[in-house]
Amino acid sequence: MSIIMAINAGSSSFKFKLFDMPKERVIASGLAERIGMDNGVFTMHYNGEKEVLETRFSDHKEAVEVMLTELKRFNVIKDINDIEGTGHRVVHGGEIYDDSVIIDDETIRNIDELSELAPLHNPPNLMGIKAFRKLLPNVPHIAVFDTSFHQTMPEKSYLYSLPYHYYKEFGIRKYGFHGTSHKYVTNRAAELLGRPLKELRLISCHLGNGASIAAVKGGESIDTSMGFTPLAGVTMGTRSGNLDPALIPYIMNKTNRTAVEVLDVLNKESGLLGVSGFSSDLRDIEQEAHKGNKRAILALDVFGSRIHKYMGSYATAMGGLDAIIFTAGVGENSDIVREKVVSGLEFMGVYFDPSMNKVRGEEVFLNHPYSPVKIIIIPTDEELMIARDVVRLTQG
Amino acid sequence: MSIIMAINAGSSSFKFKLFDMPKERVIASGLAERIGMDNGVFTMHYNGEKEVLETRFSDHKEAVEVMLTELKRFNVIKDINDIEGTGHRVVHGGEIYDDSVIIDDETIRNIDELSELAPLHNPPNLMGIKAFRKLLPNVPHIAVFDTSFHQTMPEKSYLYSLPYHYYKEFGIRKYGFHGTSHKYVTNRAAELLGRPLKELRLISCHLGNGASIAAVKGGESIDTSMGFTPLAGVTMGTRSGNLDPALIPYIMNKTNRTAVEVLDVLNKESGLLGVSGFSSDLRDIEQEAHKGNKRAILALDVFGSRIHKYMGSYATAMGGLDAIIFTAGVGENSDIVREKVVSGLEFMGVYFDPSMNKVRGEEVFLNHPYSPVKIIIIPTDEELMIARDVVRLTQG
Repeated sequence: MSIIMAINAGSSSFKFKLFDMPKERVIASGLAERIGMDNGVFTMHYNGEKEVLETRFSDHKEAVEVMLTELKRFNVIKDINDIEGTGHRVVHGGEIYDDSVIIDDETIRNIDELSELAPLHNPPNLMGIKAFRKLLPNVPHIAVFDTSFHQTMPEKSYLYSLPYHYYKEFGIRKYGFHGTSHKYVTNRAAELLGRPLKELRLISCHLGNGASIAAVKGGESIDTSMGFTPLAGVTMGTRSGNLDPALIPYIMNKTNRTAVEVLDVLNKESGLLGVSGFSSDLRDIEQEAHKGNKRAILALDVFGSRIHKYMGSYATAMGGLDAIIFTAGVGENSDIVREKVVSGLEFMGVYFDPSMNKVRGEEVFLNHPYSPVKIIIIPTDEELMIARDVVRLTQG
Repeated sequence: MSIIMAINAGSSSFKFKLFDMPKERVIASGLAERIGMDNGVFTMHYNGEKEVLETRFSDHKEAVEVMLTELKRFNVIKDINDIEGTGHRVVHGGEIYDDSVIIDDETIRNIDELSELAPLHNPPNLMGIKAFRKLLPNVPHIAVFDTSFHQTMPEKSYLYSLPYHYYKEFGIRKYGFHGTSHKYVTNRAAELLGRPLKELRLISCHLGNGASIAAVKGGESIDTSMGFTPLAGVTMGTRSGNLDPALIPYIMNKTNRTAVEVLDVLNKESGLLGVSGFSSDLRDIEQEAHKGNKRAILALDVFGSRIHKYMGSYATAMGGLDAIIFTAGVGENSDIVREKVVSGLEFMGVYFDPSMNKVRGEEVFLNHPYSPVKIIIIPTDEELMIARDVVRLTQG
């Protein structure tokens, strides 16, 4: 038995999940919130129990210390040295990392330098890593990048039609995100289909508050909807997705905003929130749409149609399709969105069976038995994927 | 017999074509170049002859006068009053015009106001209209808009995922362009297929220096790749097409440019020119690619794959597909691009037959006879479409 921890650290919080590997059993999970503020909270689930501790963490290191103390106090682990490795979600690995990596000083420097490409994410990810390296100096720590799964994309997919030196000098290209999730669900799809991943052409729809679509052929990402940043692609909770780039100067002029301020509108006031006018949460929008709210119905239509078109686009990129996968909050739970996305695809062999579509958050097939292309809900598990990478890289 | 003139006026030039309708026979065609400069040139083709006149036109009205004088001098027409109507290409009709219209004072005001949406195009279009109204005051003049064919798009296609009031207050939406061309070739496709347009699902690829794709279902545009401006959509000669909008502030920062300057790079230094590094002209790029130039091969791959993905995307939007149409300079002439666009689409019933693909600029089918989806080259004829609209609107 080997105890492995998966961590997702944000600027003022971190989530953790402790696994018994290779059984893949969750021993404990939880989160520390409001790090650096006066009203910090630590929450932990273990063994059917739930513990909530209100305390102050001055920084990530203190929050990790609290977590380790609590794990011991409730006998989840006997000693902090029981933890044999940790895995950390890192948003941006640039072109340096096409796989997860055992963290050393060079990795730290690289993640720090890549902060320019992910200024909101890499720095807090790094805070988490540094805290764990200090407190558990004798075990391996692994970085698992949101971008690395997409490093298999061919140049024609990742290159923008911009002056070429922008790519070489400034790293301007499509990176893609949600890679850990896309990798997990496509691997799982191969198991559920009983076919080798190598021969499958899959479209993975990771639909949460952020949303991205990936075309995965033979286990490799060959295209994805997010781009240089997670703003690109389909409509999201508050993000616009793709736009005519000429709109940015036009909106600047019309609203008397700077480019950075307009970008803020595109990231935080657009998407489902912008179209509906009242919420970025798809559950609210479905509820209002049900009551006949026209802007809510429109928001659903815009969201659904943007994703819908990717089905044909990515089937084209792969020369055909074996399965469509839905995952993450909206993908696992919204029958309305799923129906919009897979309807009218009979011309490419997708025969949707709505009878099972009310299911939420379970692994289930949504296609007619005779449908050449399968439709599957697969709840994602990025933490498990991280724990598996720790095992693979340290014990492989 | 009825003599109708079609006009496309730019800021320092205008092109004309004189038709004998309804026979659709071209009586004369030509252009006035360098209006307002010292070295103006008027060129005219008629009756197998070509006339070139070097002269100075101080403005559009003088250029039109020269044209009318030359038409009489070479007996193309006996009297300027032989011309029974003119049709003018106007780039932007906004949401006001879903069809061509007989120009009156209100039309002039509207086109002028719409200049905000097309500052480079509507003002010169208007100069042409005003010149013809002065010189031919007794015949009807018709405006034919690049946008009007796309006014059938449903809200879910044309609405961006931005704060909704941007649409209502600032007119921010997808308009689409090349409408006259998309309309012409889709109408012609129905004739060539021998089927009613009403039952057809067509993808029209207008690929020139500017390029746009349209999904045309039952004769109505339901989606198109250009957007608020002609910058959006696929890779073009010098235009970037769609980008992650977050790149604009990033490029501003990296290159120390204003938003408007970055937009200029996206419009004039990107696309095929940006990727290849040496030319925006597809013929140059094909030539270099043939010699093994890697950046030329890459430019072709990027261009081809962007358009390729629209095939599945728009088939999805229409629930299936009956034919793919290629038109305009590149679409009519580049076998390499056509092959990239229609390859690997067997999964959706497109069986490409390369044997006829070397054909240039002729109406020809490129699919195997048994292919459920047809592939057709159709040379576009926007001027004829304009002349037809003059006849339709003035003669019932």
